[in-house]
Amino acid sequence: MKNQVTIKQVRITPIAFRDGPLLNAAGIHEPWALRSIVEVETSDQRVGIAETYGDASVLRALREAQDLLLGLSPFALNAMEARVRAAIQPGVSADRPIQFGLATGSHVTKNAEKVISAFEAAMMDLQGQMLGMPICDLLGGAVRPEVPYSAYLFYKFAEHIDRPYAPDAWGEAVSPEQIVVQAQKMVAEYGFQSIKLKGGVFDPKLEIASMKALRKAFPTAPLRLDPNANWSLATSIAAAQELDDLLEYYEDPTPGQEGMAELAKHCRAPLATNMCVTSMEEFKRNATTHAVKILLSDHHYWGGLRATVALARMCAVFDMGMSMHSNSHLGISLMAMTHVAAAIPNLTYACDTHYPWQEEEVIKGGRLAFVEGSVKVPTTPGLGVEIAPSQLQKLHQQYLECGIQNRDDLGQMRKYNPAFGGTNPRY
Amino acid sequence: MKNQVTIKQVRITPIAFRDGPLLNAAGIHEPWALRSIVEVETSDQRVGIAETYGDASVLRALREAQDLLLGLSPFALNAMEARVRAAIQPGVSADRPIQFGLATGSHVTKNAEKVISAFEAAMMDLQGQMLGMPICDLLGGAVRPEVPYSAYLFYKFAEHIDRPYAPDAWGEAVSPEQIVVQAQKMVAEYGFQSIKLKGGVFDPKLEIASMKALRKAFPTAPLRLDPNANWSLATSIAAAQELDDLLEYYEDPTPGQEGMAELAKHCRAPLATNMCVTSMEEFKRNATTHAVKILLSDHHYWGGLRATVALARMCAVFDMGMSMHSNSHLGISLMAMTHVAAAIPNLTYACDTHYPWQEEEVIKGGRLAFVEGSVKVPTTPGLGVEIAPSQLQKLHQQYLECGIQNRDDLGQMRKYNPAFGGTNPRY
Repeated sequence: MKNQVTIKQVRITPIAFRDGPLLNAAGIHEPWALRSIVEVETSDQRVGIAETYGDASVLRALREAQDLLLGLSPFALNAMEARVRAAIQPGVSADRPIQFGLATGSHVTKNAEKVISAFEAAMMDLQGQMLGMPICDLLGGAVRPEVPYSAYLFYKFAEHIDRPYAPDAWGEAVSPEQIVVQAQKMVAEYGFQSIKLKGGVFDPKLEIASMKALRKAFPTAPLRLDPNANWSLATSIAAAQELDDLLEYYEDPTPGQEGMAELAKHCRAPLATNMCVTSMEEFKRNATTHAVKILLSDHHYWGGLRATVALARMCAVFDMGMSMHSNSHLGISLMAMTHVAAAIPNLTYACDTHYPWQEEEVIKGGRLAFVEGSVKVPTTPGLGVEIAPSQLQKLHQQYLECGIQNRDDLGQMRKYNPAFGGTNPRY
Repeated sequence: MKNQVTIKQVRITPIAFRDGPLLNAAGIHEPWALRSIVEVETSDQRVGIAETYGDASVLRALREAQDLLLGLSPFALNAMEARVRAAIQPGVSADRPIQFGLATGSHVTKNAEKVISAFEAAMMDLQGQMLGMPICDLLGGAVRPEVPYSAYLFYKFAEHIDRPYAPDAWGEAVSPEQIVVQAQKMVAEYGFQSIKLKGGVFDPKLEIASMKALRKAFPTAPLRLDPNANWSLATSIAAAQELDDLLEYYEDPTPGQEGMAELAKHCRAPLATNMCVTSMEEFKRNATTHAVKILLSDHHYWGGLRATVALARMCAVFDMGMSMHSNSHLGISLMAMTHVAAAIPNLTYACDTHYPWQEEEVIKGGRLAFVEGSVKVPTTPGLGVEIAPSQLQKLHQQYLECGIQNRDDLGQMRKYNPAFGGTNPRY
């Protein structure tokens, strides 16, 4: 019986890959982005894989929890969830009271979700391999043959401050004109049909001018601006007057559900978030505050692929639309995002992805292809991609050598400008 | 590839089976209970099965929708849902605007859920057969090896008014003493550890006396009373004083969320429902009214097994407990209920089942076994039971001959008492 196959080994490997000097509300990307690669091996020698956050606290949580999988069937997702939750919430299970370290700004609940998500994705890869089915078929089947992603634009410098390696091919983007050039290059290379700008970096006037320039260059493309909660409520309301007719959605201009709820009274563009609704408690509160209308889901912190499907059903119930959030990631995450997005009928917005900003890969065959801005939903068994061992080793070596263990966009920015405050909202 | 197998034929067969003269708020069970048996056959000659309501409106809806499955993979659950929803809500899909008939008291949304549920259960049976996995493993895996059910007691007459066949073995139960005898017989035969009484039949004083008699006979068993919304708010509040210390939960004493919310202020026993939260709209409203704390789920009308799993996640988010509702049913439904209950961590209450009240079966091997009040979760592929063709034919013949096409407990009661009013709440 397939359900007598059990998990025999779990490997957690931190990696680092080159990342561009991308600007955001917190500061600027460091030259190396971190991820954890999860490999779950069965008694019949299959390996299921997943990719998640690489910060020290998540890495430690994964490593402390990895033995909880031993002996489980790859189909025992509910049992895995129960074990991880019991371990992460001491008192629920007295026999394995693991204390996980917490990343700044995160809390116990989210660490459990992150660990569960990574293990679930790897276990569902195994399920798919064992059954000869793509993961999306284990989530009710693809409702679209390919998943559209958006062009994710960033203000950026031409190169990192200490020039750890040769500058990327994207050049500088600190003006509306340069953002348009970046958009044109990204759209030409990937075929994206929707465009998102990460804002909250420069004076809102410049960012609004960038959106207007994008509208002029792309008269019909859906446009989104994400100031990353770096604008005050007053700034967000004032900006809405200029952005209302430009935006498909207005993503996290100002912090907190209360601010977003107040803003909603003063703008026509629907408000979206991946910041003020990031847990079920916040989801429930949003049902009362009615702050946001569109949720950017992310299976990496919402507890996995199945939890994201359930979240989508909740969005439908609570009259919310669904889009998808991303962090710097490689192809393993991109494939998992594609499977789950394919299986969610009401995920009707093009998903975010940082993928164009990465140059390296950890999977066999190298970088994945986009066609007209979309990723084709895999029809091969499981996740549809495999690790290239030499690449995993190379990127792990980079992790060991880069010296970064926790993402620190603020600290990196202070290398450029020691007086950089990091207050939020800044504008 | 397994996902290239497609659905070639769908058969919907109405059946009728003997049912006892069980009393409830609406009246009394007729001598024949109706169900629809769904058989979904693939291009590789497998047959997946499901059981659902047998009323004329549901039967018609199933038959009008059955061709929507043709050509689909048994894994294409999301596509099936989309097709059924589009057909049932004219305007969403212009090319197949089916108008479904509606049963009294139901509405369009619930008919879609009923049809989707029946098709999904049969398709998941097929998936499990094709993959060699039990259905619960396709829902994240069993979190318990067996599913506990409760003894579901009914006030009843000794035999049907027109004696269409020999009386059942249970005898009359119209007094507290007779209810205790019924409970003792049912617990002795099935091993149930929890006990539920269907109330709303006689004067509340007699029903409260029945609960007290049950407590005396079963000092530690969790007890539940379900007056089926047949008590006024005042009656429910007054009764709560006597029931608070007896009940595990107080199920639907009074109609409507507003009444239940007011009652909740006056009783300590948690309120449960399968009447005032039966749709996502009502679920959402309950998050505001806080009327009930425990939801009796039922995959037959909540949109299927996956929807019930998602509903369970929503219950966890909204601090609600979960139990399970039943109607008169046979073993195909019992197995589906067992698979989904096994895969829901927070379904912590023993489930309702009418199974002890049925004598006939449609599955091979005859009636299913309970051990210490529980049904063992199947570990064989798919649903774990198959149709016995001769039994299906026999029960279909009974359907054709019994003359009942819609359940009518009120009409049946008026055969005993032409003056029976049917007003609700009656007490």
